[in-house]
Parts: sequence; C-alpha cells; structure tokens
Amino acid sequence: MADKNTQNMASIVIFGATGDLTHRKLIPALFSQYCKGNLPEQFSITGFAFDDETSDSLRERLQDGVATFAKDKYTDDSWKTFAERIHYIKGNLTEVTDFEALDKHLSDIEDGASDRLYYLAISPRFIESTVNNLGNTGMNIEDNGARKIIIEKPFGHDLESAIALNDVVHSVFQEDQIFRIDHYLGKETAQNLLFFRFANTVFESVWDRAHIDNVQISVTESVDVGHRAGYYDTAGVLRDMFQNHLLQLLTLTAMEPPASFNANELRNEKVKVLRAVRPLEMKNVVRAQYRDYRDTKGVADKSMTPTFAALKLHVDNWRWQGVPFYLRSGKALKNKGTEITIQFKKPPRMMFDLPSEFETHPNMLSMCIQPDEGVHFSFEAKKPSDPYRSQSVDMEFHYMDAFGEGAIPEAYERLLVDALNGDASLFIRSDEIETAWRIIDPILQYWEGDIPPPMFFYERNTWGPLQADKLLKDDEFDWNIACMHD
Amino acid sequence: MADKNTQNMASIVIFGATGDLTHRKLIPALFSQYCKGNLPEQFSITGFAFDDETSDSLRERLQDGVATFAKDKYTDDSWKTFAERIHYIKGNLTEVTDFEALDKHLSDIEDGASDRLYYLAISPRFIESTVNNLGNTGMNIEDNGARKIIIEKPFGHDLESAIALNDVVHSVFQEDQIFRIDHYLGKETAQNLLFFRFANTVFESVWDRAHIDNVQISVTESVDVGHRAGYYDTAGVLRDMFQNHLLQLLTLTAMEPPASFNANELRNEKVKVLRAVRPLEMKNVVRAQYRDYRDTKGVADKSMTPTFAALKLHVDNWRWQGVPFYLRSGKALKNKGTEITIQFKKPPRMMFDLPSEFETHPNMLSMCIQPDEGVHFSFEAKKPSDPYRSQSVDMEFHYMDAFGEGAIPEAYERLLVDALNGDASLFIRSDEIETAWRIIDPILQYWEGDIPPPMFFYERNTWGPLQADKLLKDDEFDWNIACMHD
Repeated sequence: MADKNTQNMASIVIFGATGDLTHRKLIPALFSQYCKGNLPEQFSITGFAFDDETSDSLRERLQDGVATFAKDKYTDDSWKTFAERIHYIKGNLTEVTDFEALDKHLSDIEDGASDRLYYLAISPRFIESTVNNLGNTGMNIEDNGARKIIIEKPFGHDLESAIALNDVVHSVFQEDQIFRIDHYLGKETAQNLLFFRFANTVFESVWDRAHIDNVQISVTESVDVGHRAGYYDTAGVLRDMFQNHLLQLLTLTAMEPPASFNANELRNEKVKVLRAVRPLEMKNVVRAQYRDYRDTKGVADKSMTPTFAALKLHVDNWRWQGVPFYLRSGKALKNKGTEITIQFKKPPRMMFDLPSEFETHPNMLSMCIQPDEGVHFSFEAKKPSDPYRSQSVDMEFHYMDAFGEGAIPEAYERLLVDALNGDASLFIRSDEIETAWRIIDPILQYWEGDIPPPMFFYERNTWGPLQADKLLKDDEFDWNIACMHD
Repeated sequence: MADKNTQNMASIVIFGATGDLTHRKLIPALFSQYCKGNLPEQFSITGFAFDDETSDSLRERLQDGVATFAKDKYTDDSWKTFAERIHYIKGNLTEVTDFEALDKHLSDIEDGASDRLYYLAISPRFIESTVNNLGNTGMNIEDNGARKIIIEKPFGHDLESAIALNDVVHSVFQEDQIFRIDHYLGKETAQNLLFFRFANTVFESVWDRAHIDNVQISVTESVDVGHRAGYYDTAGVLRDMFQNHLLQLLTLTAMEPPASFNANELRNEKVKVLRAVRPLEMKNVVRAQYRDYRDTKGVADKSMTPTFAALKLHVDNWRWQGVPFYLRSGKALKNKGTEITIQFKKPPRMMFDLPSEFETHPNMLSMCIQPDEGVHFSFEAKKPSDPYRSQSVDMEFHYMDAFGEGAIPEAYERLLVDALNGDASLFIRSDEIETAWRIIDPILQYWEGDIPPPMFFYERNTWGPLQADKLLKDDEFDWNIACMHD
C-alpha cells in the first residue's frame, strides 16, 4: 500500500485541457479529492491545449463543471483556493517547442523537486507525438521527481496497433511510469468484487467449477450512439466495451487470489486469466445492430459495425474448466446497467419428493456494478403452508443503504490519486492490454474479413437479438438480471 | 409425501378439551386449516374432560379462542359450520368405563370406517392411564381406520422416566401410531432450515468443519416464569427447553442430508447427530437463576432450579469434528428470540496489506426462527473511498417481506394436519427422545447430585450471567445476535 500522500510537490499536466473529459470528470475529481485532503500539500494543475485560452478563462470554464459534477463539495471559497493552482499553456501536441515552453513553465512553478503526472485526455491519434515530444524534451526523466503518464482508452485499435502503441510509449517511458486507465476499475463495486471474493469465506469457497454452472457479465446501455456516432462507427462494441471493460470484469471475477494487493501481483493474476481464455469459437459470438443505427448521422449507409455483441468463452484452468462465461454488451437496450451473475449448480433434487411440475431454481449471486451498486443473492426458501415447495427469494445489499448516497466516489477520483501515489494496481499493464486484444482480434478479423457472419438486428428497448438468448438456451441457461430488473 | 387429504373420515379426540392449549392453540389451528380446506371432508372433534360442560357450552368457550387466535380467518358463518362438528364427552382419564362411552360416541358419529387422532392435551401424570384405557377399550386397534396418538411434551422427566413412558405407550401403540410433538418443529423457519440447507447449493457446500468456526443456538425469553412457576420449579431450563427445542434445532442444523424427506429417513439422520454428541464436560455447562426468581409465588425458598443454562458441546463426526456448538436459553432475558448463528472461518488476512489496528470480521449466517423469521448474512464490503478497508454489512431476508404478514401459519396448524395425514416427519421418534435425554441426563444428575456446581445469578433484562459469555471468550468467540439486536 502506497502512502496516502506523496511528500513531493506534484505537477499535474492535462493534455486536452479544454475537452469534455477534463471538464466533466478530471477537474471535478481532482477538486473533490482536494476537498477531502487527498492531494499533496503542494500541487499545480497545468492545462495544455491548442485553444485560445488564458489561465483565467480556463478556470472559468472549469468552474462550471465542478459546480455541476462535484456539487456536494463545491463552495465558492474552496473553488477559489483550488482554482489558483490551475494554469493554462497554449500549445500544439506535435510541436516540440511547445513542450519546451511547457517544461519551462512547470520548472518555474515547481522551483525544485516535483513529481509530475501527465494526463493524456486527447484523441488517440496524438498519443504518439505527445509521448515522443515528452521524450524529446527530457520530460520523461525522473532525476528530479517521478514522471508518470496516464493514457486513456482506446489503447490501440486491434492487437497490432496496440503492440505498436506500447512500443512507442515504452521507447520513452518505463512500464512502471505508465498508467493505462480503464475507469471501470475505479468504480467502487468493481474493486469491491475483490473484497467480496477475498475478504469473505463463504462465496470464495464455492467460487469454482465444482459449484458454479455459468458466469454472466452484462454491460448494457440504454442510450444509442448519439453524438459519438462518427467515432463509434469506426470502433463498434467489441473495441468500445469488450476489449476493455468486459474483459476487465472477467479477470476480476475469475482470477486466483493474488499473494497481496500489490500492483504487479494483482495484475499477474489478471493476465493469467486472460491467457487461460480458450481461443473463441466463432459460432459462439453474436453480433447485431439496433434497427435504425444506419440512419444515424455519422454512420455509414451500409455500416457493418455491431452495436451489440454476445459471446461465450471458456477459461481453461483448474478453477474454471467446463464453466461457460457469457458476456454481452450493447447500445439502445432496455436498461442501463452492469452486472455479473454467478449461477450456482442446482442441488440434487430428488431428495425433496417434489411434484413433477415443480422446478427448483439455482442459487444466483449478482454483483451490481452500476447503477445501483450492490449484491443480490437469490436462494430457495420454503413456501409457507406448503410442506414441500420452495420459492426463490432475494437477499440484497445496497451500497447506498450501508454507506449513504454521497459515499461512493467517482471512479476518476480514486484513479487520479492512485496514479499520483504511484499505485498502478487499478491500471492496465502492457501485457494485459495485448492479451485482451489477442482474445478479441480473431473476432474482429472474422467480422471484418471476406466471409463475415450474419449481422442480426434488434429493436430498441429490448435485450438485443434472440440469437444472444439462444447462445445460453442451447446450454439450458438464461440471461439473468437481478439488478436492473426487466 | 402423504396425500394432502385423507380419504377416510377423521375423528379427532382432544383429551383435556377444557384446557388452555385446546383453547389457544389446537382449536384455532384446526379451525384455520378447516377454512383453508386442509381437513378431511368429513371430520368431527370430540372434547373429553372432567369438567361439567355440554357440547354447546364447550363450543361457546372455544369460539372465543378462535375469534382471538384465528382472527384473520374467523367469520360467524364459518365458525357455525365448524362448531357443529364439535362434541363434548365428560369423563375421567382413569375410568375405563368413560373410555367405553367415548368409543361408543365415536362409533355412533362415525358410522363405519374412520381414522382417529387422539390428542393428549393433559398433564403428564395422566398419560399412562389414558394410554392404558385406550388399550383396554381396543381404541388402539386399526381394524376400522388409523388410530394415532399425539403426546405433548414434556415426554419424561429424565432418561429413566422417558424410557418408562415409551414402554407404556409402546405396550398399546406401535411407534408409527405415535406422534410426539415439539411445536418448534412446526414453525415454518425451523422447517425452512432444512430447505435452506438442502435446496440451496452455496451454504450447504460450506456447512462443515473446513469452513465453520462455531455454531450458536440461542432460545431466549424475556418473560419470567410467571404463573408457570409451580411446574417450572420442578423442571428447570434443561428439561423445559434444552432436551427438546434446543437439541431439536441442533439436529436440524448439524444433520447430514437424508436420502429423502420421508419421516424415518429424516429422523434417522437426526438421531445420528444426537448419537454423535460427545459426552458433555461439566466445566462446559453453566447454570444460573435470575435474581429474584426465588421470590416468585410457587418457587421453593432455596430453589436450585436453573432459569438459564449455557453449554458447549461437540458433534464427533466427519462434518463437525472440532467445531464447538454453543447453546443457551433462559428466562427474564433482554429479548425474546430464537436464532441459530453459523460463524464461518476468517479468510487468510495477510493478503490485504492491512494496518495493524484493523480487524476483519468473519462471515456470519443467522437463521432467525422467531420472532422476525428470516435469514441474515453478514459479510465484508469495501469501505468506499478507503482503498484497503472493509466493513461488515448485512444482507437480510425476512419471511414477512416475501410472503406477507398472514402467510406464516401457526406451528400447530402444520403439525395437526401432518398427524391427520400420518406424516411423522416433524414429530419426535422414541429413540430421538431417549438419545436427547442421554445427553441431558448427566448434567441433571450432576446439578441435582451431592456436590453440585455453583449456581450463578443474573439480573433481569440482561443476556444472562458473565460465565455464559466466558464459555465463548475462552475460545476467542462471542455470542452473536443478528435477529434480536442488542
């Protein structure tokens, strides 16, 4: 565990300071952590972008975001002392001289040793030049404090480009300086998965092929592609959701207990899961589009970009051999939610001398990541008055009930402070990124190849195409939804 | 599973028809089951007692009890059609001629084949003569329908008297005609224990010495001995609660899964648990009296009758070797409640790099039998904002929430219908009774012998004497209360 606060001064540089992410997430998260006393005593935030701004005009822009997205912490006074630390440097990500100017500005306000955190809140196509310019100006060298870089997803467009990007970044930064962010890992409930599994005896003891029939991971969105259509149509649901979020949730669900929560031991275990994923059979992958996707502005007329996918995979190790994992994600679906459901095996049923029409239900454990973070456990209880019948009932735990509404911090809050403290546990290591791409790449090649499989279509406000249900029905299972309801 | 309704007519005979049990429990239970359509088409209820009553005056007495204790079912009309079936025979339990008159009365209203159920709602000292008179008059013979007898607790006063009583009953009735009642087994939640364990995979998979640290069974009463003082002072808490209720709950908690829920297979497994109980060490048994017990009218001045006991026992079999079971029960305690708590082993803690002052808590599963029937499961959840701390939180299931307030029937309802149907699953077999006494008898002999252990005293409205806490503290455990709260 890293110290709560670094002792050094910290200089936070945000490339892309005038963008949406900075406005909605990064500055509100930094402000909240500032108010909670979790930032270093001395810190500065320098925004870098190509827009015509001044420090004052940037502060004004950002104030509005903080007042909206960090509302419960916001006061005029606290904003004022926080905003004093914000500076703006206008510059071009491809111009080395602009980086020299940035470096000089940072050295001036640092006046000695300082850690630096470079946040790349920029379009993927500028990552390479930004990294190279940081290298060209020596801003990667840790002679006078740590130099860390945070890179947003998408990290590559496929396996090849991810490897190339890793090579670029590694030519300038060491792996332990690099923080590849997947904000899903900053969510409390994603982290709680690890606590739930490893700080409790009961469930971890039955967390294996002997007790579990299947595992389901659903990340569903009710919104459609909206104004992101242009980007989305070049990406699709596999790149947008599966390669990162869904496979990350898979690793947390399936991993062996690490020897400690040290970043590398934790990530070693996550990579082990990904490496144990059996090469996917293409018949176990379903792709689909919502009905009017192609009418969206920014989407190609005959677009073959999937907005929904479902797949079945296997993790071939001692713990999981024979247990199917079903993953699905899509847009314009019935409800928004992220949940992981563990379906346990049924008990031997003949013991209860049951009428033939009577079905027992398997135990289900649902970890709800969002929106209603919590845990649902459904089990069989005796039906009152009926000597030999049971009924599925639910035990529930809601984070909100236990810890209060404001208690759950934004994902970015945790991740930014972790990065400042040099704790990479919740960031993705290069081999993790590449191994995840290795799983997804064959599907992309098939779908984008010469003889692609059929594209299915689904109505808005449904749970996707019937083929996604069939994937489970063929194994005599059904998608289970405990947190989002139907 | 027996058929829901027997085809035969049924004659129900209640010996002790003018007593409290008949008024408060038996008739309200029969009436409720009548309203639910669970009694045979043709049935009669004959009350037998020594009081000067008529059928009409008995009906009047009982109507009041039904209107109070079966309120939700009561209507004048339904009562009227039910009450027509009630008859009264005045008689003496020791007079064979009165039994002849009873038999004649029954034969008259039966007019052919009929099952008979004899309910002995009488003082234990009349059981022998009643049984013998049933035998003397041939009322035990099953030539013309089943003949079953229900015997209320206490069944014997110690091992010797229980064996003698079994001998008496067996001289007239076969074991499969005998239904020894413990109303705890008629409670939905006691039965649900079996469903919870055997219709669910998760908990039964960790229901053993590898996963469980200890098991606690508490049956606490907030009332004092009250008007039962005369009887109670000759019995004490071991006879009143442990030999029956607590050991029954122990068997349901600790038993192996039976091959089916057939009465004998179920009871075979229960007896196996009792037989596996290691002879108690007297240092593991605590007895106590509440402070002013001896001032109660009906209690001897220097009474050494315990109103509280706590004990530790071991079940020496493959499943439970090394797991202590702690049992306690008493009167005038802080709260009324019955609960069984399973304390699971802690996970290996070093994995979480925890500050030294930090304690993880073990998982606890609490089965609440009364008053708030349900299941509580406490587990560790991650504390929001705090990367490496967890907190115990609770998942709860309440019967009432799932099935509604009126859904849970009175214990006697189920038991009476089971007896009518000849299903003895929830009744105590002779070897069960005797084996339970074999566990309790050595304590009674020690406590009532020449060199008894100290009697401790406890204040009203507490959880009993400190010595009961020490029993667990010596093993580094504490009594856990999830359902009753503190």
